Amino acid sequence: MTQTAEERVLEAIRKRRELVNGSIDEELPIGKPERLYEASRYILEAGGKRLRPTVTLLAAESLSDIEPFSQEYRSFPTPSSDRAGPNAIEGTTTDGADRIDVLRAAVAIEIVQSFTLIHDDIMDDDDLRRGVPAVHKQYDTSTAILAGDTLYSKAFELMTDTGATPHNGLETMRLLATTCTKICEGQALDVAFESRNDILPDEYLEMVELKTAVLYGAAASTPAVLFGTDSDVSEALYRYGIDSGRAFQIQDDVLDLTVPSEKLGKQRGSDLVENKETLITLHARQQGIDVDDLVETEDVDAVTEAEIDDAVEALEAAGSIDWAREKARDLTERSKDHLSVLPDNDARQLLEELADYLITRGY
Amino acid sequence: MTQTAEERVLEAIRKRRELVNGSIDEELPIGKPERLYEASRYILEAGGKRLRPTVTLLAAESLSDIEPFSQEYRSFPTPSSDRAGPNAIEGTTTDGADRIDVLRAAVAIEIVQSFTLIHDDIMDDDDLRRGVPAVHKQYDTSTAILAGDTLYSKAFELMTDTGATPHNGLETMRLLATTCTKICEGQALDVAFESRNDILPDEYLEMVELKTAVLYGAAASTPAVLFGTDSDVSEALYRYGIDSGRAFQIQDDVLDLTVPSEKLGKQRGSDLVENKETLITLHARQQGIDVDDLVETEDVDAVTEAEIDDAVEALEAAGSIDWAREKARDLTERSKDHLSVLPDNDARQLLEELADYLITRGY
Repeated sequence: MTQTAEERVLEAIRKRRELVNGSIDEELPIGKPERLYEASRYILEAGGKRLRPTVTLLAAESLSDIEPFSQEYRSFPTPSSDRAGPNAIEGTTTDGADRIDVLRAAVAIEIVQSFTLIHDDIMDDDDLRRGVPAVHKQYDTSTAILAGDTLYSKAFELMTDTGATPHNGLETMRLLATTCTKICEGQALDVAFESRNDILPDEYLEMVELKTAVLYGAAASTPAVLFGTDSDVSEALYRYGIDSGRAFQIQDDVLDLTVPSEKLGKQRGSDLVENKETLITLHARQQGIDVDDLVETEDVDAVTEAEIDDAVEALEAAGSIDWAREKARDLTERSKDHLSVLPDNDARQLLEELADYLITRGY
Repeated sequence: MTQTAEERVLEAIRKRRELVNGSIDEELPIGKPERLYEASRYILEAGGKRLRPTVTLLAAESLSDIEPFSQEYRSFPTPSSDRAGPNAIEGTTTDGADRIDVLRAAVAIEIVQSFTLIHDDIMDDDDLRRGVPAVHKQYDTSTAILAGDTLYSKAFELMTDTGATPHNGLETMRLLATTCTKICEGQALDVAFESRNDILPDEYLEMVELKTAVLYGAAASTPAVLFGTDSDVSEALYRYGIDSGRAFQIQDDVLDLTVPSEKLGKQRGSDLVENKETLITLHARQQGIDVDDLVETEDVDAVTEAEIDDAVEALEAAGSIDWAREKARDLTERSKDHLSVLPDNDARQLLEELADYLITRGY
């Protein structure tokens, strides 16, 4: 029975998600005060596809040319280790660190993602996340701010302790810190865009790069930095993450318009109701569509499906949705091209298929 | 003309404050989006005594046995450098890093302090900070959350780039990350205490240790970790920071009751009005005083000086203010004892005098 590419990648994600989920207890134990740690773990435990840590684990597997799950991810052979496969990429770290806790690094990346979700939900005053109340609704705003702050420092704590050489460990910390700064810049741009209606598509893509894609970049390149592989390899993996991360966000924008509300877990078209600019609306504006008047209702709880249908129809007629899909496809192809630095192995193929999945997924 | 100890330490703080203030532009340049970076710098530029970075600079001076201001703080000799003084503490870092940017490390510590102030002010809904509107009042809550988050990652970014050896650099990152986690735990305890009236003095002191003192601990021990000196030296400096930091907070609680509102920059007795527990009120409760009824007005804008006077008189009669002062003095003596690991030089004497100043200062 041969699997399709999508079945393969879904299975790859599921297996790695289980691995990540199984390590949360260990990596983020409930300390004191308990309420703070419970709030910090709340969103992590509410679900999530774990796409970013999956990217981290796959990148490690490909670099070391390891048969998936043939080695402990907590004591993962570096490319220069004698456990690495015959096609492992050349590593430069031979001074004592031939085993790395890549699972911990992957969890640190997911924890950064959780921290940003918690703080973003406060800023956007979003009530729901992953089908459950947002942290500031389930607890309160103070607890949510602090839960995010705690996850922030916990991610840094975990990343200091992966077993990498001090040089590679410090470089990974630098990558994590600059990534977090960029995420803040991206979120600030996103907030600022709410009060502007003259945003250019390139500005939008820059915001998406900062807010969303850099964490995919960090997820993909972290194993290379931990292993100390040549900078052209870590940079190519970073670019893979950036391009596929941008495509991921564009697909999110498309899904917001095209997937039924039940399946989406929130009101379809909520971006339009909340006057949130996306690549789609920016294209429509350029086609002369009066985007601000597409949906008159300004409350997601009051909008009707018929209103959304009409708006989506107008955007489709202007070619805006197809244009965004095309843009996402282009970025995905570019992202896969960057992977040519990796050995030709299963993990690399899964990274390619994962990039495809990011723009073909239905939710 | 001989200076008193207080004049000496005030001058030492002033000179180092100027050094720190002069480096903010360089360490935290206004990036994009500008509004985010302006908001991030707003509290830093509104003032502050820079006590924590002063502690960092003094600890570096003492460890390397350097005549204050005889060396560039951006390229500061480690104890093992040939520029270090004859009494420099023995350093273990000889692998290439004999110059450290201790000013950058000091600024990173101050930036962490600023991040916590911004987020704490949101949680406490405090309107004023350092005599100007709090960031969430001057800007808005979203910008304030993001400004804090940006300072958070900037502090980590700066600390990756001090010129220390990778080993010592990574250890410093670990110290910074665990310190930030503890600060979050302390703030969470502080928030939780608001809804309890059965707090024990030891619980209060533990909260103060986490919320306030650990950053003094990190400030004092960071140079030792960057220099790679023996762990008993860095631990003694950490304990110096913890004990003097706890004394600092107790003095803050005393000042809230004893300094005229004009000088305090906020309503005297505001802790009592807001039912904020301190070591003083906890002692008073143990003496049978009905602390909850000491001030009946629950609005700092409505309370009268006479009401505060009566409350303070009752606390004085119960011996609670003197008891807190005594506790602060004990902690200060303990903090100074830890400094015996340092060479006997001017900088060490200033660290001792600074500990005294923390509990004798009038604001």
